[in-house]
Amino acid sequence: MTHPYRSHTCGALSAAEVGQTVRLSGWVHRKRDHGGVLFVDLRDHYGITQVVTDSDSPALAVLDSLRAESVVTIEGTVKARTEGTVNPNLATGEIEVYARVATVLGKAEELPMPVAGEQEYPEDIRLKYRFLDLRRETLHANIVKRTQIIRDMRRRMEDTGFTEYSTPILTASSPEGARDFLVPSRIHAGKFYALPQAPQQYKQLLMVAGFDRYFQIAPCFRDEDPRADRLPGEFYQLDLEMSFVTQEEVWETMEPVLRATFAEFAGDKPVTPAGEFRRIPHAQAMLDYGSDKPDLRNPLLIKDVTEHFVDSGFGIFAGIVANGGTIRAIPAPGAGAGSRKFFDDMNVWARGEGYSGLGYINIKDGVPGGPIAKNHGEEKTAALIAALGLGPNDGVFFAAGKEEQAAKLAGLARTRVGEQLGLIDKDRFELCWIVDFPFYEWDEDNKKVDFAHNPFSMPQGGMDALQNQDPLTIKAYQYDLVCNGFEIASGSIRNQSPELMVKAFEMTGLTQADVEDRFGGLYRAFQYGAPPHGGMAAGVDRIVMLLCGAQNLREITLFPMNQRAEDLLMNAPSHAEPKQLRELHLRVVEPVKQAAPAKSAE
Amino acid sequence: MTHPYRSHTCGALSAAEVGQTVRLSGWVHRKRDHGGVLFVDLRDHYGITQVVTDSDSPALAVLDSLRAESVVTIEGTVKARTEGTVNPNLATGEIEVYARVATVLGKAEELPMPVAGEQEYPEDIRLKYRFLDLRRETLHANIVKRTQIIRDMRRRMEDTGFTEYSTPILTASSPEGARDFLVPSRIHAGKFYALPQAPQQYKQLLMVAGFDRYFQIAPCFRDEDPRADRLPGEFYQLDLEMSFVTQEEVWETMEPVLRATFAEFAGDKPVTPAGEFRRIPHAQAMLDYGSDKPDLRNPLLIKDVTEHFVDSGFGIFAGIVANGGTIRAIPAPGAGAGSRKFFDDMNVWARGEGYSGLGYINIKDGVPGGPIAKNHGEEKTAALIAALGLGPNDGVFFAAGKEEQAAKLAGLARTRVGEQLGLIDKDRFELCWIVDFPFYEWDEDNKKVDFAHNPFSMPQGGMDALQNQDPLTIKAYQYDLVCNGFEIASGSIRNQSPELMVKAFEMTGLTQADVEDRFGGLYRAFQYGAPPHGGMAAGVDRIVMLLCGAQNLREITLFPMNQRAEDLLMNAPSHAEPKQLRELHLRVVEPVKQAAPAKSAE
Repeated sequence: MTHPYRSHTCGALSAAEVGQTVRLSGWVHRKRDHGGVLFVDLRDHYGITQVVTDSDSPALAVLDSLRAESVVTIEGTVKARTEGTVNPNLATGEIEVYARVATVLGKAEELPMPVAGEQEYPEDIRLKYRFLDLRRETLHANIVKRTQIIRDMRRRMEDTGFTEYSTPILTASSPEGARDFLVPSRIHAGKFYALPQAPQQYKQLLMVAGFDRYFQIAPCFRDEDPRADRLPGEFYQLDLEMSFVTQEEVWETMEPVLRATFAEFAGDKPVTPAGEFRRIPHAQAMLDYGSDKPDLRNPLLIKDVTEHFVDSGFGIFAGIVANGGTIRAIPAPGAGAGSRKFFDDMNVWARGEGYSGLGYINIKDGVPGGPIAKNHGEEKTAALIAALGLGPNDGVFFAAGKEEQAAKLAGLARTRVGEQLGLIDKDRFELCWIVDFPFYEWDEDNKKVDFAHNPFSMPQGGMDALQNQDPLTIKAYQYDLVCNGFEIASGSIRNQSPELMVKAFEMTGLTQADVEDRFGGLYRAFQYGAPPHGGMAAGVDRIVMLLCGAQNLREITLFPMNQRAEDLLMNAPSHAEPKQLRELHLRVVEPVKQAAPAKSAE
Repeated sequence: MTHPYRSHTCGALSAAEVGQTVRLSGWVHRKRDHGGVLFVDLRDHYGITQVVTDSDSPALAVLDSLRAESVVTIEGTVKARTEGTVNPNLATGEIEVYARVATVLGKAEELPMPVAGEQEYPEDIRLKYRFLDLRRETLHANIVKRTQIIRDMRRRMEDTGFTEYSTPILTASSPEGARDFLVPSRIHAGKFYALPQAPQQYKQLLMVAGFDRYFQIAPCFRDEDPRADRLPGEFYQLDLEMSFVTQEEVWETMEPVLRATFAEFAGDKPVTPAGEFRRIPHAQAMLDYGSDKPDLRNPLLIKDVTEHFVDSGFGIFAGIVANGGTIRAIPAPGAGAGSRKFFDDMNVWARGEGYSGLGYINIKDGVPGGPIAKNHGEEKTAALIAALGLGPNDGVFFAAGKEEQAAKLAGLARTRVGEQLGLIDKDRFELCWIVDFPFYEWDEDNKKVDFAHNPFSMPQGGMDALQNQDPLTIKAYQYDLVCNGFEIASGSIRNQSPELMVKAFEMTGLTQADVEDRFGGLYRAFQYGAPPHGGMAAGVDRIVMLLCGAQNLREITLFPMNQRAEDLLMNAPSHAEPKQLRELHLRVVEPVKQAAPAKSAE
């Protein structure tokens, strides 16, 4: 036993080593004093081993004096536990180590937060003492699982013929999209680098440079105001791009990769098999699910029932339809048998969400109830119920309004009804593609056509569509991958033709000169032999969250910032030295303070 | 053949496919018109295939009209080449494809630089059109090799029980070391994040958090003035850290990993076997090689001959020795038989390097020549030659001066003599550890003791050494890995004791409050149970350069900046919008222009 710190890790010993002299090092996880016999759970990255000592051993005094989380080396003999004390939940639960020697390697002061037990603790303490927080069982396991998921993705990408290229982190500001983080240049006064929001242009340049199949576990940076589902600062994408591909080939290539990673880490939860990811056109998703991120674990399907309310006796809906509006129906199977309160509560909820309300029909023993059924007319109501295929004790909700609003409310109601009625099987991962996204959308603020998503995507129909089609009806070769109601990836076939690129931007009011100015590198590259190419980017953090069952990004992130974009552990951001600012040719302009109430002159 | 772009890549076809109808896509690498028969070398990421067409095919007109580097899909039949035209240097050299259809996917304008042939071209053009430059054979192959080397390192680290953790890129400014890149905070006026110079503190925090074996292919950032051997901006390290280790365990763990990566990519060049890396104490390296980065391919060993020049008839050396100076001898085997000019040229070279000169003795047929031999005295010269083991036609140079200067000049001379005499076997990789670096050095500018290298390293002898030993004689558990004269990795066992950390900094004039202020996160962490830990960081770029045989970092980097820290392709850095500066609470202070000569007042 020549190693000064350990002959085994704290997760290694079993009955096979009984009788051996061993050396272990780790943290004092828990101590229990049973009247002169001291039990210490010694913990390291690999597991926990029970150490025992008593007054016959000098280790007793050493271990007795230590606070929890101190680091110690013990030397002793492996003993079998007596039958009643075997712990089947612990890898090392068959044995304990009788400590004859204990050496302190790192004392712990009184802890600002406990490690063992995982008691809830305020977030600012957890972040300031992240090195303690990270010792806790769940967070430690989540972080390890995160590394395993990324490793698994990476290996599968490599095994699928992709090569990982690292693209620059100090790069140019990108004029579209979210806000950039800027990095002042010392050498070029008044100029700035930017951190990449995504390696979009670089990966396209890689394709133009002839590198066929690129991927990268890519750090991305957006200076956006903190949101519940986005940490401030940086996040990671599984970014990829392929040359000489159709969108179908991208899907067929990536389904097995992502499905396999999900299956690997989903435990015993079923995952949609590769080759069976549904491909749902965007318009269809908006109709059936009221969302472009449908949760397919929810069996409910929305139906358009606008036609039923032409000339309805229910005047509100009739009026909406007469004004070109839309009515969508959300079934609530079996809900009619229950309390009317469920229906009224849904209506209250819809108002709380900012909608004018959610109509409904509750059918009890075959009798439709509620104001809509009452006014709509008996025959028409029967026809409606038949069209919706509702049973004698089902319910149905109605979202009414302009099409977009009705669809959105119907989607929210579908989710809520599914949850309230317990229809969503939480223990599954349902994956699907949403395809054929619109290329353009109407920008109401600026009264012009703008890109709905990625300006670098290829419009379906090419130049002909751009020249001859209502731009708002043009679809893009653009797709999302959705899991359980979350967008986990997004991609497209790119527009690699310089003429098409200029034309596509012209539709949004930009000139060729603007394109050259803003996307000069890419535009220039397309002049010199660009292959057709496309790809996607998957959100690593979101996928890890889903697979860890975590509710918060901070539970799967090593050293996250808080919601005020501060690193409490390292004290960032912080003031720069005057010398640094001079070198960067910058002066800080303190924000104007709220003026104090003016005092009268004395 | 349902794929619209290719049934095979341009590197796939062989005699086995003769007779098949195939579809290929790629770039027009070269065109040759043999009187109505057009040959096109079609290139993609995977290889080159010869395409042939003639006036019987409509493909002729299409291909004939295209400039080099246009992207095209061709469809045709695989044909065996006739015996005399088989190209054994090409994977697809047995066949050619007779094109019946050709479709243009991406036209190329007139090229600003050629791709085929790899003609030398000005760097600014190469960087501005990097997407063309990257299509060139050598650079394309270097970049692919780079990705393979990184992938290989990563897999070996994983297979050795290391886990890859990504540490934050937006972090705190680090007060020691090189200049940071700063990132202004929008939310916190006047405060800044910094990009990490290395993940040093985070990896140590990971150890304190209990994660045992960390590694990362880590992007690192230093805002240093461009140097020949460092690109502006970012670079990559294979960064690693281990808990409960001695420095011997770090070496024994990493030797097989790095040796295997070298061996994998070294072709048939021998690499020092794992387990046989020499461990050379720093002081020994400075004596034997005059460098802490010795090139062990050079067989020459420096000898200290100071004692020989006590009371020498060669007054200059005698004077230097009398003043406490040092004389080092660099043998030049066989050089005595050659021209005297070799010796004189070395002396001129040494003066050019800023030294006062390089003495020598040239032995011809057993007769020592030159001013030193003449003045030193016959007997003493014979004794000196015997002590150095010189033969009857050898030479020897002498570097004299203060010990440090003499050692350094001797080291430079050793390299030059080795090169001039052709003693260095270029086709080998010789790896060794340099160990036992001094912990402190004398800071002549500030007349105080300062850290020689890493302030976080553990001093040998611990608190006792810090309290009782001349600080300039204290060694650190600090080591470099050196290959062929380049430092390729550096590491240490860390000082994880808060008391030792404070004491170590106190020796350099900092107080406990300074330590808490500057390294608060790490110092705080050490209070709560820190394990002994250590590791190292290897320079990925340097290793790739060595293995590619490249002379310039830009030849192994995807999108490098130029020496003025500009990205000519993406146009970075660039001016920020006024709105961006307002949001960041910054104003640019234009540097004061050189004042024009004052005019007399009129």
